[in-house]
Amino acid sequence: MQRIAVDMDDVIAAPLPKHLQLFNQRYNDNISINDLQGRYLTELRPHLEKEILDLLAEPDFFRDLDVMEDSQEVLELLDREYDIFIVTAAMELPTSFSAKYQWLEKHFSFLNKQNIVFCGDKSIVDADYLIDDNPKNLEVFKGQGILFNSPYNSHVEEFKRVDNWKDIKSYFIDNKK
Amino acid sequence: MQRIAVDMDDVIAAPLPKHLQLFNQRYNDNISINDLQGRYLTELRPHLEKEILDLLAEPDFFRDLDVMEDSQEVLELLDREYDIFIVTAAMELPTSFSAKYQWLEKHFSFLNKQNIVFCGDKSIVDADYLIDDNPKNLEVFKGQGILFNSPYNSHVEEFKRVDNWKDIKSYFIDNKK
Repeated sequence: MQRIAVDMDDVIAAPLPKHLQLFNQRYNDNISINDLQGRYLTELRPHLEKEILDLLAEPDFFRDLDVMEDSQEVLELLDREYDIFIVTAAMELPTSFSAKYQWLEKHFSFLNKQNIVFCGDKSIVDADYLIDDNPKNLEVFKGQGILFNSPYNSHVEEFKRVDNWKDIKSYFIDNKK
Repeated sequence: MQRIAVDMDDVIAAPLPKHLQLFNQRYNDNISINDLQGRYLTELRPHLEKEILDLLAEPDFFRDLDVMEDSQEVLELLDREYDIFIVTAAMELPTSFSAKYQWLEKHFSFLNKQNIVFCGDKSIVDADYLIDDNPKNLEVFKGQGILFNSPYNSHVEEFKRVDNWKDIKSYFIDNKK
């Protein structure tokens, strides 16, 4: 059975809208998702870099994130034909471990808990596919990398890009029929 | 650079003596490490299986474990010539995440935090070597498996066995000179 590794943040979980909303609220700003085309929030407001990253380190930040549209339905389908692993770069934010695990238990309870990976450097991942929004993770991955569309990766051209989970369904299931 | 994946429990950290001591103390028993040759504690006291596993799930259990003899010195040496990853099956005990991370920060601060992996099924690990005390993890690993000696794996014969960290140093460094 082929194995698909799936990133969490901005692929199945949606930290970006919450991060932006929290930032605008606390620092009285008005940045929209459209302002982030090709850029990270820290690049738009470099003088607040520490404050921006500190928002993510709050222990509850990852606890109540929205689920990315269609990700549950499509992963449940893929789970029948592929070996699914959730692989998240949690070592950058050790405060997020519990919240991330509980979020997965709540929203992706059908996945095997033994197939969750909290790591840093994703070159350690042995899988056939990696679906990730961060080109840095795809660069070190040895299998087929699939870039999940996000405002800040809009300029990246080296990888197969999918816009949403319907695209992923087409790539893995519809196209194989 | 070749990559060595290193398990935590009973390889660089010593949960076994603490687990046994806690068990004897709480359940008024007198089991020694020698009683565990080829057997797990849960096999010796099957009627207390849940209680035995619950001891490990206490959030602080992994916080103050002893460091396995010579593991720091040898890993610091190996770290110069190999890419070292710490790979621990933490998903069985989600309550252990923080304690395990803090223990690594304290005792193996020289290792790159991006090279820590909390996982379940270790078949996801892409490395040249895996040093582990659990034969189940070595069975699913595609590289060279190295079994770290422990009382309960004393009957296992399928893998290259090392008795301690001096053996590991010989295997990776002394033998290559």
